Amino acid sequence: MIKKALHLNQGKDDPDALTSFFDEIHTIAQGLATARDARIHTDNEAPVSLPSNESIVQLIHQARRILFPDFFFQTAPATANLAHCLAREIMELYDNLSTQVGLSLRHNRLQAAQPDHGSNKRGSETAIDFLRALFEIKRLLTADMCAAMEGDPAARSFDEVICSYPGFSAITVYRLAHKLHVLRVPLIPRIMTEYAHSLTGIDIHPGAEIGESFFIDHGTGVVVGETTEIGDRVRLYQGVTLGALSLSKHEIALFKNKKRHPTIEDDVIIYSNATILGAEAVIGARSIIGGNVWITERVPADTKVLLEKPKLIFIGNNGHKTSPTQEAEK
Amino acid sequence: MIKKALHLNQGKDDPDALTSFFDEIHTIAQGLATARDARIHTDNEAPVSLPSNESIVQLIHQARRILFPDFFFQTAPATANLAHCLAREIMELYDNLSTQVGLSLRHNRLQAAQPDHGSNKRGSETAIDFLRALFEIKRLLTADMCAAMEGDPAARSFDEVICSYPGFSAITVYRLAHKLHVLRVPLIPRIMTEYAHSLTGIDIHPGAEIGESFFIDHGTGVVVGETTEIGDRVRLYQGVTLGALSLSKHEIALFKNKKRHPTIEDDVIIYSNATILGAEAVIGARSIIGGNVWITERVPADTKVLLEKPKLIFIGNNGHKTSPTQEAEK
Amino acid sequence: MIKKALHLNQGKDDPDALTSFFDEIHTIAQGLATARDARIHTDNEAPVSLPSNESIVQLIHQARRILFPDFFFQTAPATANLAHCLAREIMELYDNLSTQVGLSLRHNRLQAAQPDHGSNKRGSETAIDFLRALFEIKRLLTADMCAAMEGDPAARSFDEVICSYPGFSAITVYRLAHKLHVLRVPLIPRIMTEYAHSLTGIDIHPGAEIGESFFIDHGTGVVVGETTEIGDRVRLYQGVTLGALSLSKHEIALFKNKKRHPTIEDDVIIYSNATILGAEAVIGARSIIGGNVWITERVPADTKVLLEKPKLIFIGNNGHKTSPTQEAEK
Repeated sequence: MIKKALHLNQGKDDPDALTSFFDEIHTIAQGLATARDARIHTDNEAPVSLPSNESIVQLIHQARRILFPDFFFQTAPATANLAHCLAREIMELYDNLSTQVGLSLRHNRLQAAQPDHGSNKRGSETAIDFLRALFEIKRLLTADMCAAMEGDPAARSFDEVICSYPGFSAITVYRLAHKLHVLRVPLIPRIMTEYAHSLTGIDIHPGAEIGESFFIDHGTGVVVGETTEIGDRVRLYQGVTLGALSLSKHEIALFKNKKRHPTIEDDVIIYSNATILGAEAVIGARSIIGGNVWITERVPADTKVLLEKPKLIFIGNNGHKTSPTQEAEK
Repeated sequence: MIKKALHLNQGKDDPDALTSFFDEIHTIAQGLATARDARIHTDNEAPVSLPSNESIVQLIHQARRILFPDFFFQTAPATANLAHCLAREIMELYDNLSTQVGLSLRHNRLQAAQPDHGSNKRGSETAIDFLRALFEIKRLLTADMCAAMEGDPAARSFDEVICSYPGFSAITVYRLAHKLHVLRVPLIPRIMTEYAHSLTGIDIHPGAEIGESFFIDHGTGVVVGETTEIGDRVRLYQGVTLGALSLSKHEIALFKNKKRHPTIEDDVIIYSNATILGAEAVIGARSIIGGNVWITERVPADTKVLLEKPKLIFIGNNGHKTSPTQEAEK
Repeated sequence: MIKKALHLNQGKDDPDALTSFFDEIHTIAQGLATARDARIHTDNEAPVSLPSNESIVQLIHQARRILFPDFFFQTAPATANLAHCLAREIMELYDNLSTQVGLSLRHNRLQAAQPDHGSNKRGSETAIDFLRALFEIKRLLTADMCAAMEGDPAARSFDEVICSYPGFSAITVYRLAHKLHVLRVPLIPRIMTEYAHSLTGIDIHPGAEIGESFFIDHGTGVVVGETTEIGDRVRLYQGVTLGALSLSKHEIALFKNKKRHPTIEDDVIIYSNATILGAEAVIGARSIIGGNVWITERVPADTKVLLEKPKLIFIGNNGHKTSPTQEAEK
């Protein structure tokens, strides 16, 4: 570093150049230190530990190994050894999760200028509640896995679904994050689903409520908003948005914590790039929503909603407009 | 961990609390172990090694260094040293690939309840066949690189294309995965393309057949389905879907392994968010498909397909509807 | 490896098999070495070091720690210690950045067959200029953070925005990369924004000019092209393209370095999947562009642009077409 600093003034042995370089660095650091923002700074005295991104990603990997030991261990454990192997992994997950939840609760309280009270204890209790839910989460994910196998002609095996389907990966993380959301853990559930969003392009808010046997194919661009409700056996394709209607700044403040997103009943299929917006949009059971449709209203059960076929303009190489049928007749 | 377990009961020295904590962990582990799913579990006696995600990602990096030694080595090797340097990298790729292919073949046979027979040998043979194909893959990728340079006014240099273009990155992985798909390797090709999908938002099935000089710009949301055929010098933009028509559950079972996706002939350009679905959709040579178009039918050669311009509604700040021309005239 | 090579010929001790295996590897390596492409190869004599992807990703993490010390350090530093802690981090960023910029400048000159002249010195100077800009970048990002908090009813805290919002993450990387772009650093800015693109699905070219208080919600599929200009307090949703009109191959060569992308004035909101193309498309201040709209023309200030509501076709389970209102009346 010192060598580089000297490059600045071309003087290989110039102690003044070096001094002025360090002065500059310290001026920049001092300026930035002073600009610390009170709204996002939590402690004036001691260093504060935050939940760590790496540890939260680790939580997801630990949970996956526990839920699908045939896949996410380096070597799938033998049956005789399985319960022991899972117990060890569960204890490591417990350690990591109780620490991270404790940190996020403490951070939350300090930021609200409340005394840190019992965050560690609540971290431990929440971790245990989460472990107790793993059996049910495994049952749900097994149903999701079967839904992928039934819903995609390209699916060759359950292995392929578990190891390579981004939809299955996003749903796995959502089901873990949703449980923590229900247990009222701050920050961590959202970091988990954004990790999945980053890997898969699928953005499911941990607050959404999603039924059994859920399948998302391809998935890039899917958005499922915070107060969305989805029934059983629903299938979504890439680019589907289940979002909120636009709000003015005034309304945004009012609508925090209120239902703003659609309700999708059982057995609905929604094709690619369809956009369904607002709490009024209740899509009735067994309905099919076609690609690129934009809906903000109620749709009755057993209904197909399709765009009128757009009139395409075909321009042949003679520059004349034709219809595809005319072309085909030639 | 023991310290945390005690937090649960607030008793720092309570051996009963600790015992009951361990009991709970073991009950949860036992429950999950019992729920092992026969459909995805492959071996009741011994641990089974699976192809490893990390090793498969490593395969991609190894192949990239071999194909573009000027870029993906820490330091680009000098010309005098290049053949030696490539030979060493090729041998490492061989080791990794023969192992992973052997594991995936073995896993596949065990899961189909067939005896593991010759998986290791076929792994080694497949690895050699793959190495022999690298020269041709390099030729194809060089043509793809030139297509990017010609197709994008923002492209400044070949370096930029190779180091930063997500489309080029996705096509590189597809060309590697497609070769393994042709060599009938299970699971690994799909894990490779899903790795690229995760990094780029571009989802190309390894089974698709894609010609020379292929370019994808931006790319997020692109889907190219399993039985798609694409000719030479084709250009795609972000959000383009080359997908299958929707099928009922009954049809899905019938259509496994059948042609379900479009055919795109030479020199076609498909603009952003166009959706082309089904095996009937054959897009003739030199045709141009406009943005947001939805096509399920044959398009003759030399044809432009555009949406009729949607009638936009402009609402000025006086609340009256106007057309953009009227506004411009004011 | 030797063991595996022997598998090929089933002969555990056959030295000929081993020799022929090594011969094959060397033939493949030799072929690939000969195929080195003059257009992307920069040096015939000595190894050339390239800017390293890992180091560029590291730059982003270093800058983030400096800009938001409450979040991206393992443990947020105490106030008393903050300036010291930042100074240390700033010096490390300086080291990394001056090296990488030097390498990219050198690589650029060698590739243009120019002598490497002063690349290291310019690397050091550029790094210092970048450090001086961090204070202003922090000010801009703080305004962006507030825009996210005001723009999204689901945002619970500034923490959540900083730690989990992909839009905020992409804008952070863009603001860093844009500064380097302005300082005329080759290659590195684009690698930085493509890293963000890979993580978030948001593709902002470092050349774009973006004003204050910018917010992107969800973000997957957003494209902001090289010569786009965006004013203050603009809000974008997922899938919005601010792109170029299509060009013929001939035009592409002409349009390198020219304005090809839209201008978005202050306080504009653009909803999901809207596409705005070309330099003629100037969106006037305070206008609102609805979802899925496709615009290539000027839009006056204070205008709402909406698609005419498409006529949806509802097909009830009796096979008859109905309108949603008719259904609702039943």
